[in-house]
Amino acid sequence: MTELKPVVDVPALMARLGREARAAAAVLALAPAKQKDAALLAAAMLIRANVDDLLEANMKDMTLARAKGLTPALLDRLELDERRIEAMAKGLEEIAALPDPVGTVIAEWDRPNGLHFERVRVPLGVIGIIFESRPSVTADAGALCLKSGNVAILRGGSEGANTIRVIHGCLAEALSAAGLPDAAIALVPTTDRAAVGEMLRGLDGNLDVIVPRGGKSLVARVQEEARVPVFAHLEGLCHVYVDRDADLAMAKSIVLNAKMRRTGVCGSAETLLVDRACAATHLAPLVAMLIEAGCEVRGDAETQKVDPRVKPASEEDWATEYLDAIIAVRVVDGVKEAMAHIARYGSHHTEAIVTGNLETAARFLNEVDSAIVLHNASTQFADGGEFGMGGEIGIATGKFHARGPVGVEQLTSFKYIVRGNGQIRPV
Amino acid sequence: MTELKPVVDVPALMARLGREARAAAAVLALAPAKQKDAALLAAAMLIRANVDDLLEANMKDMTLARAKGLTPALLDRLELDERRIEAMAKGLEEIAALPDPVGTVIAEWDRPNGLHFERVRVPLGVIGIIFESRPSVTADAGALCLKSGNVAILRGGSEGANTIRVIHGCLAEALSAAGLPDAAIALVPTTDRAAVGEMLRGLDGNLDVIVPRGGKSLVARVQEEARVPVFAHLEGLCHVYVDRDADLAMAKSIVLNAKMRRTGVCGSAETLLVDRACAATHLAPLVAMLIEAGCEVRGDAETQKVDPRVKPASEEDWATEYLDAIIAVRVVDGVKEAMAHIARYGSHHTEAIVTGNLETAARFLNEVDSAIVLHNASTQFADGGEFGMGGEIGIATGKFHARGPVGVEQLTSFKYIVRGNGQIRPV
Repeated sequence: MTELKPVVDVPALMARLGREARAAAAVLALAPAKQKDAALLAAAMLIRANVDDLLEANMKDMTLARAKGLTPALLDRLELDERRIEAMAKGLEEIAALPDPVGTVIAEWDRPNGLHFERVRVPLGVIGIIFESRPSVTADAGALCLKSGNVAILRGGSEGANTIRVIHGCLAEALSAAGLPDAAIALVPTTDRAAVGEMLRGLDGNLDVIVPRGGKSLVARVQEEARVPVFAHLEGLCHVYVDRDADLAMAKSIVLNAKMRRTGVCGSAETLLVDRACAATHLAPLVAMLIEAGCEVRGDAETQKVDPRVKPASEEDWATEYLDAIIAVRVVDGVKEAMAHIARYGSHHTEAIVTGNLETAARFLNEVDSAIVLHNASTQFADGGEFGMGGEIGIATGKFHARGPVGVEQLTSFKYIVRGNGQIRPV
Repeated sequence: MTELKPVVDVPALMARLGREARAAAAVLALAPAKQKDAALLAAAMLIRANVDDLLEANMKDMTLARAKGLTPALLDRLELDERRIEAMAKGLEEIAALPDPVGTVIAEWDRPNGLHFERVRVPLGVIGIIFESRPSVTADAGALCLKSGNVAILRGGSEGANTIRVIHGCLAEALSAAGLPDAAIALVPTTDRAAVGEMLRGLDGNLDVIVPRGGKSLVARVQEEARVPVFAHLEGLCHVYVDRDADLAMAKSIVLNAKMRRTGVCGSAETLLVDRACAATHLAPLVAMLIEAGCEVRGDAETQKVDPRVKPASEEDWATEYLDAIIAVRVVDGVKEAMAHIARYGSHHTEAIVTGNLETAARFLNEVDSAIVLHNASTQFADGGEFGMGGEIGIATGKFHARGPVGVEQLTSFKYIVRGNGQIRPV
């Protein structure tokens, strides 16, 4: 007699993955920069060499996804072409070229008793990445973890399963070629959703942090349920405040870029706040510019007055991350009311002020409680690459450990190395 | 008709405390250094001025505690005398004298597009401190939070309730005198244990981190149940490894201090590992020294051979934080086996190597995965004051955000301030 068994015992599978990851983490933590970089460069080469396999696997995924009726936006994220494959390979090379954060001395000092203290970067350990439709996350998240001496456990969306498997195969082969453990970048070998639950519970202490990469419902679930730290932002409800002392031409340029350069990224502006003191001169041109660029404008009563094409904004609009060509516009009484609006409706992600007044700017930069605050620059700079971090695994709006773009440095912890010559502590 | 009501509606009380704390945090985050320091100095003055009230309240607590049959160790922690009160006041003055971490630029850089980036320290927000018998935690934890621009919610043990109330009264009066909100250092006004449960659940998002200060069962409960980040160490099972290249006199001095200076602190050594290659010369003198200093030695078979006074160590001894005049001693095959022992039984807190060989030391310092690793110095230096941090709220063994001693800098987060002159992001 045979019993029916589930195809995969997910808890046992994930527990094993966790143990293997922890063992690999001990190796990775001590791996020299050269060895990690060799693996990254080999992976880039293998990705390029396997372009046909990648395209074929991606075509399978695309066919299934179309049959499932995925939205055009999701299909776009899922799709690979030669340009995107080359970008993925190039991204790996760029990460290889970054300085190795591990072992960097962040601070050092001496004490009067002769003890010498160093604060030295060490990897965090095992990082779980739960992502949705973008298969290239396999390569970039895996590479950022490897560079920072961490083990990655990747759990991708089922839509991209075939593509992800081929990308992961390239990474695994590259790790082996460089003499590093396969388990350094592990792919969860099942699309069973129970695997996510196991990761959220922390794999018996073998998972140190989770990075969700995907839509709001994924991030919300991870933030709600994870028993381990999470690097994430639930939303990027970013504001641009145009102050009374703003140059109109600069304000127009920044607002247009902040809203329209890409509407689907977390750093895109969702609400425009205009100082009442310059509304007479600045509001109408800003609104007209946005509408003419193809942006729907939803305004408060005063904004509605300046242009008949403005639709009325409801209370809900102030709290909505559109991720689309829509913007909410409100007239406020100066920087103080602008900051109060941001404190009430914002998501602590990224906010910008446009002003020629350094005092007003200083106040905004100091008082607004967001990961990124900008003066006279577009909110779309909210990106690890633009910060000069050479890539990011995501942007965090929490205040613990990592805040803002999470690059290789943010994927490390530190330890204290203390050197003496026989010092003992007096009573 | 009157209904019987519970004396305190703890969930409602704690929810209100959380809301008040969050409101106060917005004020504290922007409070100038001078104002915070004025409050700290006023508190020191009030503590000195109220020495009689403090002693009287403490006597009440001591009387009740003796009646309850508390252990001598707990009674010692609970007791205040004039010397301890003066130390508490002096501690407040020392914290006032520290540089203000808030607003410090941790890093700054320019990008080719002319954007200027600054990474600036900001407070974390609201910090919950759950402590047991030591009433002076009220002053030192409250002061460290205030200095770092954070709000403190203090929940002390019932044994010290009267003493804590008087200390807190001094702090509250000092805050008012300095024009800061009372709620900046809040004391949970009930000893109902349900209040701890509410804090562990995070007070509706109004508590950002919890620091448990007390015994292992308290820390274990907080680590297990808290839904917010925790800065803590469950135990300090610290090791001293005496290498083949150790100078015997230095080894004796360090081992004696690491074990016996104070046996009840987390940085005290619990296990001594001696390299087999020097056991013939070093083991017997080390063991004899410890025994003659009043320390019980529990050794492996080889250690038992060198001195008839050595008791046999069981497997459990390697995993025990004695916090007492007891030490486990084992002979190991060089630094590699020492590190394997530490990886297996250690608590990632503090470990020391004694050796004259810089290469061996470098390997130990690099590979041992503990918050603090020392070369030729006592493990008892595991202390924020000894690190030059000017006090600590505790020591953390986790790798997130704070690791090792948690001082005012570790009680901060950061934000990015980006200054431009009209920069927009290219497509």
